[in-house]
Amino acid sequence: MKVVATFARARSESSKVSGPIGLVPTMGSLHDGHLSLIEEARRECSHVVMSLYINALQFGDIEDFERYPRDLERDLRLAASAGADLVFVPEDSTMYPEGDVSRVSFKGISEIMEGSFRPGHFEGVGTVVVKLLAGLQPDRAYFGRKDAQQLAVVRRLVRDLAFPIRIVGCPTVREKDGLALSSRNLRLDPKCRESALALSRGLFEAADLAESGEIDGPILERTAMNVMADTLGVEPEYATLADQINAVRISHVDRPAFLAVAARIGRVRLIDNIHLELVERSVVVDRGLRLSHKSVLYDDAMQQDGSLENRRVS
Amino acid sequence: MKVVATFARARSESSKVSGPIGLVPTMGSLHDGHLSLIEEARRECSHVVMSLYINALQFGDIEDFERYPRDLERDLRLAASAGADLVFVPEDSTMYPEGDVSRVSFKGISEIMEGSFRPGHFEGVGTVVVKLLAGLQPDRAYFGRKDAQQLAVVRRLVRDLAFPIRIVGCPTVREKDGLALSSRNLRLDPKCRESALALSRGLFEAADLAESGEIDGPILERTAMNVMADTLGVEPEYATLADQINAVRISHVDRPAFLAVAARIGRVRLIDNIHLELVERSVVVDRGLRLSHKSVLYDDAMQQDGSLENRRVS
Repeated sequence: MKVVATFARARSESSKVSGPIGLVPTMGSLHDGHLSLIEEARRECSHVVMSLYINALQFGDIEDFERYPRDLERDLRLAASAGADLVFVPEDSTMYPEGDVSRVSFKGISEIMEGSFRPGHFEGVGTVVVKLLAGLQPDRAYFGRKDAQQLAVVRRLVRDLAFPIRIVGCPTVREKDGLALSSRNLRLDPKCRESALALSRGLFEAADLAESGEIDGPILERTAMNVMADTLGVEPEYATLADQINAVRISHVDRPAFLAVAARIGRVRLIDNIHLELVERSVVVDRGLRLSHKSVLYDDAMQQDGSLENRRVS
Repeated sequence: MKVVATFARARSESSKVSGPIGLVPTMGSLHDGHLSLIEEARRECSHVVMSLYINALQFGDIEDFERYPRDLERDLRLAASAGADLVFVPEDSTMYPEGDVSRVSFKGISEIMEGSFRPGHFEGVGTVVVKLLAGLQPDRAYFGRKDAQQLAVVRRLVRDLAFPIRIVGCPTVREKDGLALSSRNLRLDPKCRESALALSRGLFEAADLAESGEIDGPILERTAMNVMADTLGVEPEYATLADQINAVRISHVDRPAFLAVAARIGRVRLIDNIHLELVERSVVVDRGLRLSHKSVLYDDAMQQDGSLENRRVS
């Protein structure tokens, strides 16, 4: 696996390989969710590029940016073991060259849920994703469904801006107890981690209702919201049923949808969602994948004995 | 020469040729300025793609959009004769697919001159240019210096958004009497056409001053402005000395600069500029190129006897 810092070097490495180039954009602090994206790209592509860049522009909250976990050496080891061929780790001056003023924004699609609680967030995401797509020229790019609204925004920008790139959405990966993997989980102490389970618990309660026939948006939203509100240490922000394609709020599960939640647990803000679809008048829920093992996040032993090498898929 | 309507078809044609792909984005209504861009692309590239799309998003003024001249058959004939290999003529639904919401904007660089008199103009230009660059994947793209601020904005976006594309700026082409070629000149009656000469006359007076040592911005601006203001039928909008790179207003010709003017002649709005550079303490002015012949715009005979075929450079 090679590590490069410039777009030109990355393209030059990719151009040596024939067949599809897969991109997995990350902000580092890799967990099994990221690794599943790399593994999926490995299965489908000849050349797998992971980008690792903590994009300040998409953080509204300076504290969240500053406290975002960073561990480059560990990330490189994990990326290699999951099958990445190339890791692109640009400097700020490569991503935002001197005098940079260009911004990509989205009218409408980016104003609810994350867009409403994190003003400017999707402008930051859109701008950095366009840079990565334009500069690295992948054929496919892999994003987690855990960021369901982001996935909708990225699909939208690729279509609107005519990038000849296929966007692949991959399942949310969860710990054994349901907590969706997130780099921010590292910042939860044991008590907060316990509270954080309210997000998935709320979603799963709504999922059970949906599977037994409930397709009313406000009822599903209220179910998830109540579980969060009733849990000590959880400040819920929203529970919203939205269209998977446009990320607009919808009133019923009458098309491919997701139910998304956000909450603050102490100083850490977390999001989660489940995907819902109507198949022959029944709601089919995709709750994501559960790890049968402990997440790499909490498994320091794995870092020490190098056993992650066994994850390599090629 | 082939004509295609979709990005995929255009890429498929371009992929058959090895060597650089050159893109000449136009809104049709071709004149010798456009043809000089195609000819320059022909000299430098293996495959020359001209796009032809009248982008409503960059017109603030609906009347200007509706009255923008259109003559596809003539444009295709001219493009072929100048050496284009492929003309990309997309439908609106290809450039702005259903549900389109993505926009590219520029903080600061787009707020003076054209940006100030045509709010939203550069968002329209930036958005359509990103679509063309992402969808057609050229190695080089050719733009006229007549739109000097647009050229700065396009260079900026290519750098900011990491497109691996070289932007080539080509000289303004003028009629024998100095009038800068513009598709909008077609809308000038003989009297207005006479008034319109005030733009280039004002710029050339300022150019003479600069060449004799005047580098003060406000003096050069006032010179051009006064010539326009003193001409019957001309409503000047601005005369601005700006940095070629950032398109910000500057007070002296102390770096590569352009002096840009805009004015309304009846219902037609025109722009023009000259480029100024300080070389060993003297100002060198680039006034653009003068045609020795009549512009194709006014030469109907050329359309009828097919003599334009002789222009073919290959």
